[in-house]
Amino acid sequence: MKKYRITFQPTGQSIEVHEGTTVMKAIREAGIDYDFPCGGARKCGKCKIRIVNGITQSQEKEREFLGEKEIYDGIHLACFTEIYSDAAIELVQVKAAQHQILLASQERTVKLEPHITKKYIEVRKPSIGDHQSDWKRFKKSLFEGEEESAAALDVQIPILHQLPEALRSAQYHLTAITYGREVIGIEHQDTTETLLGMAFDIGTTTIVGYLMDLNSGKELSVVSTLNPQTKFGADVISRSNYANQEEKGLENLHSAVIRAINKLVVEATENAGVDSDAIYVITVAGNTCMHHLFLGLSPRYISISPYIPTISEPVVMRAQNLPIRINKAGKILVLPNIAGFVGADTVAVLLATELDKSEEIKLMIDIGTNGEIALGSKDKLFACSAAAGPAFEGAQISSGMRGAAGAIDHVHFGEKLEYSVIGGGKPRGICGSGLLDVVAGLLHTGIIDEKGRFLPPDEISNPAAQNFKENIVQHEGMGAFLLADASSTDHESSILVTQKDVRELQLAKGAMAAGMKILMEKCGIEVEQIQEVLLAGAFGNYLNPHSACAIGLIPKELEDRIKMVGNAAGTGAKLALLSVSEYKRTAEIADFVGFVELASHPQFSSIFARSMYFR
Amino acid sequence: MKKYRITFQPTGQSIEVHEGTTVMKAIREAGIDYDFPCGGARKCGKCKIRIVNGITQSQEKEREFLGEKEIYDGIHLACFTEIYSDAAIELVQVKAAQHQILLASQERTVKLEPHITKKYIEVRKPSIGDHQSDWKRFKKSLFEGEEESAAALDVQIPILHQLPEALRSAQYHLTAITYGREVIGIEHQDTTETLLGMAFDIGTTTIVGYLMDLNSGKELSVVSTLNPQTKFGADVISRSNYANQEEKGLENLHSAVIRAINKLVVEATENAGVDSDAIYVITVAGNTCMHHLFLGLSPRYISISPYIPTISEPVVMRAQNLPIRINKAGKILVLPNIAGFVGADTVAVLLATELDKSEEIKLMIDIGTNGEIALGSKDKLFACSAAAGPAFEGAQISSGMRGAAGAIDHVHFGEKLEYSVIGGGKPRGICGSGLLDVVAGLLHTGIIDEKGRFLPPDEISNPAAQNFKENIVQHEGMGAFLLADASSTDHESSILVTQKDVRELQLAKGAMAAGMKILMEKCGIEVEQIQEVLLAGAFGNYLNPHSACAIGLIPKELEDRIKMVGNAAGTGAKLALLSVSEYKRTAEIADFVGFVELASHPQFSSIFARSMYFR
Repeated sequence: MKKYRITFQPTGQSIEVHEGTTVMKAIREAGIDYDFPCGGARKCGKCKIRIVNGITQSQEKEREFLGEKEIYDGIHLACFTEIYSDAAIELVQVKAAQHQILLASQERTVKLEPHITKKYIEVRKPSIGDHQSDWKRFKKSLFEGEEESAAALDVQIPILHQLPEALRSAQYHLTAITYGREVIGIEHQDTTETLLGMAFDIGTTTIVGYLMDLNSGKELSVVSTLNPQTKFGADVISRSNYANQEEKGLENLHSAVIRAINKLVVEATENAGVDSDAIYVITVAGNTCMHHLFLGLSPRYISISPYIPTISEPVVMRAQNLPIRINKAGKILVLPNIAGFVGADTVAVLLATELDKSEEIKLMIDIGTNGEIALGSKDKLFACSAAAGPAFEGAQISSGMRGAAGAIDHVHFGEKLEYSVIGGGKPRGICGSGLLDVVAGLLHTGIIDEKGRFLPPDEISNPAAQNFKENIVQHEGMGAFLLADASSTDHESSILVTQKDVRELQLAKGAMAAGMKILMEKCGIEVEQIQEVLLAGAFGNYLNPHSACAIGLIPKELEDRIKMVGNAAGTGAKLALLSVSEYKRTAEIADFVGFVELASHPQFSSIFARSMYFR
Repeated sequence: MKKYRITFQPTGQSIEVHEGTTVMKAIREAGIDYDFPCGGARKCGKCKIRIVNGITQSQEKEREFLGEKEIYDGIHLACFTEIYSDAAIELVQVKAAQHQILLASQERTVKLEPHITKKYIEVRKPSIGDHQSDWKRFKKSLFEGEEESAAALDVQIPILHQLPEALRSAQYHLTAITYGREVIGIEHQDTTETLLGMAFDIGTTTIVGYLMDLNSGKELSVVSTLNPQTKFGADVISRSNYANQEEKGLENLHSAVIRAINKLVVEATENAGVDSDAIYVITVAGNTCMHHLFLGLSPRYISISPYIPTISEPVVMRAQNLPIRINKAGKILVLPNIAGFVGADTVAVLLATELDKSEEIKLMIDIGTNGEIALGSKDKLFACSAAAGPAFEGAQISSGMRGAAGAIDHVHFGEKLEYSVIGGGKPRGICGSGLLDVVAGLLHTGIIDEKGRFLPPDEISNPAAQNFKENIVQHEGMGAFLLADASSTDHESSILVTQKDVRELQLAKGAMAAGMKILMEKCGIEVEQIQEVLLAGAFGNYLNPHSACAIGLIPKELEDRIKMVGNAAGTGAKLALLSVSEYKRTAEIADFVGFVELASHPQFSSIFARSMYFR
């Protein structure tokens, strides 16, 4: 028996069914929540659907339940209608504008309100006596009855180049793609079914991209890559120096991130089996330096006092101008910055977590190469950026690696040393969360002291260290901790945590802890007043809160108030992608948040130095 | 004694004066109308001026006449102030907004209201504690006290690229260049003195450019060139065919006109001794085909029934996108079309001549390769386009040439043949107005008959022909008229008007006369009701109205109602350049004018055939 593919609108879901299956059965099999009040007994006439295209068959009795206009419009009842070809079926009970979607880990819902609108139009043909220009007749069809909107429409020369041939070869049946009052594209026939977008979180070390269906709000693919700018410098300061001091430095950094994003576009669309030409809009979040480099703007004055970005406001530009290889009509929407290094990524996190609407005082920590911290509530909210360096992301650690397959991500100091490896199998290195566990364990067992120094074996007095005697080794004349010997690793080299690795972590946690202290001072908030600690970022999602508190990255008092919120910057970028209102809110958030410049605090150096100690 | 150059704002006038001259004397010497109520006796304190830059000296007594704020603002009295360097002086009695300028031949005044605004601003420097982005502080200075305007300002990425370095190297003193709500350029220091524009009339055969000072409304230079597209076809239909049928045909035509305009920009700026970078805006008028080719749009569907242009509305675009080599921030404003071949040039003529506001019924004839005709008044106004061909512009005539130096432009059949040559000296050819005189003379003397045929010498019966016996010759087996023999011409070849030349002129005048007839029929207007005939276009300006009526190009009854209005299309383009309001009016005119498609008139062919006869 033949099978056919049914695609449902506006949800975008699809399913294969046997010839002759009723639409009702197909809807149920697809797991779609749809009302059948009489349970399919063909008595109530409520399960209305519309056949967009495809061959179907119904019984004459169905007409008793439908009005003349409904019949004319292609409305049928799902219980009567049988399927005899591939078909597209509109679920008329489901109104696109009322769709609510749930974003993972944030418990945030969003009303779909895409930046880009597609409208299918049938343009009136010209004739002798009707000499209006192609553009005028196109505009008239697009804004039937709304003369003023048509008058305000912006002319784009590239559209004019295509319009005459498009109208005539598509027999005057077109889909118009608009962004605000601007027509950005035209396509032959009805293409309204396809409307994709991507949200990007450009981190200093990692870039993550989310491919989304803008008609349904569904996530189609998530892809990530190392930020290729790392080869020009591990952190924002070294990249800024490279941009300013090297010939073509800025150009190299800019084109590196653009190429990486274009690669992710290809990867995501291949994963989802869609065409990159169906992507019309991209949102981008990143710290101020990443933001500037993405736009090809020099980060020079962000990295020297008084740390001034070129622009903080939201920026909208044509994808072609960067160039990002999505639909040639596509738009890039860049989220706004706050100030200094507190950039669009923090704005995205705040959009996702809604700290600016919170009744309670909350602390948000987004741990990355640059760590951003925000503290406050709906009454006042301050943020700062701490130069943690890439240690949390596994970079500049002797056996460090990203939190990918083969990384030791958790370590437990029990009777003996236990660790877990991402993806299972033999380990290839250690990622940030694993490093945190190791250092917390070394502290707990007294193998290192509060200053972070490996004690000489004969000075270790804590009995808890006894179980790990074998693991305490020497490396380059200093103490080190053997996590896995060569025989047990994937690459047959041992995995160590060295004295230098501990120092790197100390710098990172010191920067973060100093930032939190200064922010609390600025807000006049005591540790006890903080009701919730939101840990954002990939690293934040994997770390062991106990370890984080043990080494003093987060105040001990808050250990039971920690909540992981995942890659909230990515979630914020997705929210801004799915909804014009959410995107508009980013500008409000950027205006609301007060910026605290750590380096200009008179005691910054001493606070930072003290914060490097483990308690 | 040293001399210095004084430039006056906002008039743009300048003058050289000796060291120590008072500003009052300089103003008088420059011939500027300025009020000195006490006659320069230093008693009234009325002759206020502002020193924009330069070294000047005044006496302490001057301060008695000025308020504290005036002194702070650099206000001085012209009678007290002596000049000791080159200087720019603002004539504060003269308000830029009230400037009235007179446009040659049109008796039209226009209030200066430039499309592009320059504003000199001093941006607040950033500091620790004032972390606003460069863009935000720039916007704030530009719209001091107008928060809403600042919020609505569009971001342009190229401006962001320049802004940080521009602010810092110019010590935060910039001139902002805006077009509507868009910042299109920034310049170091105060450059408000310089604001130029060009207006172009792109004819099928000739392109004319006008370089204008937008601060003063003064015309700085007029330049013209043959439209280089003529090598791809003499008229709009042959060019449209070339564009559609040849590979790269459209591209060749587009780049030819762009190159020609860029050459004219260079020529005009060199003539005036100014920099092409000081040009920020260009207006363009031309028939629909020229309009489309200028924008790189295919004229394909204009030239086949039902003759649909791609766009009629006004188009604004960036100069860089064509590319026109003016200031890289510059804008191109293209005037709107009416329909078919009645294009932006006709709109420009109507703007200049204000037919749409006229109480009386007027006939406007713009004679060129394509001749446009408009008929009506403020109550109703119709227009059509007649394919006259290039004969009126001297092309495709055996000895034809443009109305340039060396052209016989007028011919008188008196006792003997007399002619005048443009620029004096020996003739090199004959231009349209000369050809018209010759044919009118040949008709009058009976050397040709009403069908345009050269009579065999023995059939010529009119005694008036006796004086020109020597001039009646044979050419390629047909009759011809010798205008100048080889010994009297510049190139030592004789200048003839051949049978074929007469036929070309007949086609041209036939097309125009047919257009007028059909238009009158459409409007229900009799010849006698027409109060004024406005002859536009370079050719219209030079022709002898008597000759035009003698050959039936214009109805004889209207001979004493003919008024030359010069290159009114160029004047219209200039008006639209100098004033936003005038540019806006072009869209209203394009909407108001009814279009008459000659080819779709059922009797067009027979009317055209009859109109080729002389009388």
